[in-house]
Amino acid sequence: MTAHPPHRFRSALFAPGNQPEVLKKLPRSHPDLAILDLEDAVPDTQSAKQQAREVAREAAGWLAAHHPEQAVYVRLNAVHSPYFSEDLAALTSELAGVVLPKLERAAELDEALHQLAERGLSHLQVMAGIETVAGVEHAAELLRGPVTSAYFGAEDYVADLGGVRSEAGLEVLYPRSRVAMLCRLAGVAAFDIVVTKLRDEGAFYEDAQLGRSLGYGGKLCIHPAQVGLAHQVFSPSPEEIKRAW
Amino acid sequence: MTAHPPHRFRSALFAPGNQPEVLKKLPRSHPDLAILDLEDAVPDTQSAKQQAREVAREAAGWLAAHHPEQAVYVRLNAVHSPYFSEDLAALTSELAGVVLPKLERAAELDEALHQLAERGLSHLQVMAGIETVAGVEHAAELLRGPVTSAYFGAEDYVADLGGVRSEAGLEVLYPRSRVAMLCRLAGVAAFDIVVTKLRDEGAFYEDAQLGRSLGYGGKLCIHPAQVGLAHQVFSPSPEEIKRAW
Amino acid sequence: MTAHPPHRFRSALFAPGNQPEVLKKLPRSHPDLAILDLEDAVPDTQSAKQQAREVAREAAGWLAAHHPEQAVYVRLNAVHSPYFSEDLAALTSELAGVVLPKLERAAELDEALHQLAERGLSHLQVMAGIETVAGVEHAAELLRGPVTSAYFGAEDYVADLGGVRSEAGLEVLYPRSRVAMLCRLAGVAAFDIVVTKLRDEGAFYEDAQLGRSLGYGGKLCIHPAQVGLAHQVFSPSPEEIKRAW
Ligand SMILES: [Mg+2]
Ligand SMILES: [Mg+2]
Ligand SMILES: [Mg+2]
Repeated sequence: MTAHPPHRFRSALFAPGNQPEVLKKLPRSHPDLAILDLEDAVPDTQSAKQQAREVAREAAGWLAAHHPEQAVYVRLNAVHSPYFSEDLAALTSELAGVVLPKLERAAELDEALHQLAERGLSHLQVMAGIETVAGVEHAAELLRGPVTSAYFGAEDYVADLGGVRSEAGLEVLYPRSRVAMLCRLAGVAAFDIVVTKLRDEGAFYEDAQLGRSLGYGGKLCIHPAQVGLAHQVFSPSPEEIKRAW
Repeated sequence: MTAHPPHRFRSALFAPGNQPEVLKKLPRSHPDLAILDLEDAVPDTQSAKQQAREVAREAAGWLAAHHPEQAVYVRLNAVHSPYFSEDLAALTSELAGVVLPKLERAAELDEALHQLAERGLSHLQVMAGIETVAGVEHAAELLRGPVTSAYFGAEDYVADLGGVRSEAGLEVLYPRSRVAMLCRLAGVAAFDIVVTKLRDEGAFYEDAQLGRSLGYGGKLCIHPAQVGLAHQVFSPSPEEIKRAW
Repeated sequence: MTAHPPHRFRSALFAPGNQPEVLKKLPRSHPDLAILDLEDAVPDTQSAKQQAREVAREAAGWLAAHHPEQAVYVRLNAVHSPYFSEDLAALTSELAGVVLPKLERAAELDEALHQLAERGLSHLQVMAGIETVAGVEHAAELLRGPVTSAYFGAEDYVADLGGVRSEAGLEVLYPRSRVAMLCRLAGVAAFDIVVTKLRDEGAFYEDAQLGRSLGYGGKLCIHPAQVGLAHQVFSPSPEEIKRAW
């Protein structure tokens, strides 16, 4: 059913949906998933969103033609946002999947699935974004077929909570733990939080180790340099592969 | 409906309900809420509680007359305690609110609300005390209208749990995180745990920072010197105010 | 109803069910519970399990005769494993209890209780093993009569989660906190995680302190030297005993 089933979910590299040159470069770092972002990376206006839809649609076509081996997803705006229905026009049948951010209740997921089906896009893989207080609280009802992967978004979660992000990250230990656990229970691949310090390899590496210990299988990446680091951390070692046999 | 709606919930300063001179000094540090405590700060005997009710009632009247700008709450004993019904006699209509400690189930909250209504005190704001294992587990059913604020009480929680309080506080990270999260979900103002080291400004400041990162909007205070510190930590910075606009 | 009600649940010392000499030495370190293990400590084959059943049954008889003061439990294999029904043959009426590992749902517990009843073993105390993602998620339905104690198993939990165990242990802080809390709510004695570093007294002591702060009343032990340390940490101090009166 899936056009480009990614063999693994260790890295999902985002690029702004309104930047055609950046989108075309997504495959260079060989991420397991390349995500054309219509949401957080695009300004919150109708005109900016509309431009991004067109750019992303064209980039998706270009990527399918030139990098057929690259699994490409598009991140739509939230189902309850004023952009969702029109965002669907950016989706092409060559895509591997779609990301539904800020999911909070089963009804939103059902609505999104319904609209995808109406457009003949039921074959797309679905990644669920769990990144609000309500989303974490109701995650169990959001992590179910046809959702095949999910991410926990710490920045948006803490903003919604009214908290503050800290170096140590204790403020997200509970929700981050809980989302990984529920993903496991649902058989859904789990992507760990973004590391916003783009030029700090050590910070990414350390945070990815924590994410892996918590049960995540990969990381959201927002810079190509993060992809290789994610693959290092989330690739099972030869000992682990041996043990599994 | 509310006599003295506090503009903010950054600090709630407690004083023992049986100490008239201390009660009258509550407004000096300008706490967002001043709480006349009939519960933990008063010995667990009928005579001590009765004396405290009378002292607190008189202090409430005095505060309303001399410091009408000060929002004043009274903390009653737990609904399931032998003191609750008689504690209601300490409440005056000039109060801004009432604190219901050690809430554990919806039925207890309903019972308290019923008794408040019977005495014509339905206009009082209600602060819920979440400070037992059962209270944390059932917090979702306790954080709802007319509850407008709540606090997490770490000392009582850990005593009820049969655990031990530690410097690092890892033993309360999960319940402390969860209560803040459920408060946010319910739209209820969240007060963070007491810092018992009265003369350690650094300890209070650090713990308040953690509380803020976890989503709390203010702190329970048990010493006037803690109030100013709480306001420092929980007042949004100019940058944050700008961002919100 | 109980043959050997242990006065306390501070230590539960495991020994491999297939090693008769080790089993007979279990009482030497005076653990509150001695557990003859048919599960993790015995290879995962029918023949090894069968041999262990016979060895454990004989050891149970020997311990009852020579150390009648020692409370002895047998850990069976998981209810949903291919070994469970035959494991019941290893149980003798002199035992104090039985450990049901990797419990995940109420139906499994009910099935185990049913089979115990059929064999006339309803008088045995039951310890529940909570050590999988599903077990933690559904722990509330597993911690109920006749379960009198439970343990959280970090190694198996993290393996099931697909995570990695770390020195700091942040990856189990949430489930470890939650299991202790639910045990308290259910009135069930809670045993904390195994410390696998057998020769590191400091590591055991520190981890036991954390377990105690989280509300655990004792520790699973896998080496006799851990028993005394557990008793040190989990015995209430004279001050605590005084306070309770
Ligand atoms: Mg986001
Ligand atoms: Mg209290
Ligand atoms: Mg185990």
